[in-house]
Amino acid sequence: MITLYDLVFDKDLRPSPFCWRTKLALKHKGLRWRDEPCGFGDKQKIAFAQSQTYPVIHDATKVVKDSWAIVQHLDAAYPDKPLMPDKAYARFVNGWADTAVNPAIFPIVVGDLVDRVRPQDKDYIVESRGKRLGTTDFAGFQAKAREKGVAAFRAALEPARRVLKEQPFLSGDAPAYPDYILLGSLLWPRTLSPLALLDEGDVVHAWRERMLDLFDGMARKAPAAA
Amino acid sequence: MITLYDLVFDKDLRPSPFCWRTKLALKHKGLRWRDEPCGFGDKQKIAFAQSQTYPVIHDATKVVKDSWAIVQHLDAAYPDKPLMPDKAYARFVNGWADTAVNPAIFPIVVGDLVDRVRPQDKDYIVESRGKRLGTTDFAGFQAKAREKGVAAFRAALEPARRVLKEQPFLSGDAPAYPDYILLGSLLWPRTLSPLALLDEGDVVHAWRERMLDLFDGMARKAPAAA
Repeated sequence: MITLYDLVFDKDLRPSPFCWRTKLALKHKGLRWRDEPCGFGDKQKIAFAQSQTYPVIHDATKVVKDSWAIVQHLDAAYPDKPLMPDKAYARFVNGWADTAVNPAIFPIVVGDLVDRVRPQDKDYIVESRGKRLGTTDFAGFQAKAREKGVAAFRAALEPARRVLKEQPFLSGDAPAYPDYILLGSLLWPRTLSPLALLDEGDVVHAWRERMLDLFDGMARKAPAAA
Repeated sequence: MITLYDLVFDKDLRPSPFCWRTKLALKHKGLRWRDEPCGFGDKQKIAFAQSQTYPVIHDATKVVKDSWAIVQHLDAAYPDKPLMPDKAYARFVNGWADTAVNPAIFPIVVGDLVDRVRPQDKDYIVESRGKRLGTTDFAGFQAKAREKGVAAFRAALEPARRVLKEQPFLSGDAPAYPDYILLGSLLWPRTLSPLALLDEGDVVHAWRERMLDLFDGMARKAPAAA
């Protein structure tokens, strides 16, 4: 049995793009898991894994932290339905999401993010994100960031857009880990904010709709901010 | 016999990142070609291809413009030694280079670029690049852009860096089109400018050294600005 330590916000919101990568990867493999929701203040729950961040999985005797280590573990331990038929492509997309996509999202949803943590995690998030941004006026920072930030975010998606103009999924005719990485990034703002980040005419929007339908609509049905 | 219409600057410099993609792809396939160097003012030479940009190839009866169309033609017409064993990965890297890497390079070498066109192309480049930048003080623009632009360029390479920490080439144990795309981008400033863009401790630097050695040092031996 697999246990997944998944970051939780107030009202059972699950925004973490890294945890989404893992949940979608587990679903792709057809694996079930025991859900262990943890807030920012619950890090003692993952101390056994020497981890400061979510996700962590405990798979039988094996403890794996970090979404990239987890997907490699899953493809090694459960070779059916490979998540990474081309590991270099997955690695590239993973690095791109971490360094180009997620940083483009953070400033335009940070106000919603801070608003939606569990009450007991509020002080922690205000302090840590305040330090990162140099202000605790998160709503003001977010509003200002959105002026140019939404267009910059859409521009950052261009490499994915070019692939999706030629084929239904980043991975070809069916989704695999590169698709789950990008969907994870998009589920982060979707969970936290009512902001419409994608233009409806965008091929990335159409792809996201297909992705939200996967696994009996798992991601579409997940709790999201109104 | 293949003819390649390749963009040429003064003193036979060949800076175009898009033409480099094609030259490296032709070499990968073991194909020879007739070199037809063309400046910005020689576009009548590629009018037969309905193209306004280089590269163009004329391969027997087939005329192909645009580096992405050319690489697809090469893999279709010469199936040995595939350039794109995973076409989606190549497409993704192509879009990334076009929209994240090349735009990070342009402002930090634009002064050198304008300085090094053929004398007869000078008016054209000053007008077209002047319009794009809103100034014709290219040296001043470049100097200012380098203050933050070199670090931004290095940061933009992070997806490639993560792959190259795990394997010798973007494509695995041997180079293929994703590697040629990125090398093409790096040959552009290398041809135009003495600026050292990569830190010597960077895995991307070590990879570039390996790439410059390919094909009997073809790219290393190409004329470059002192």
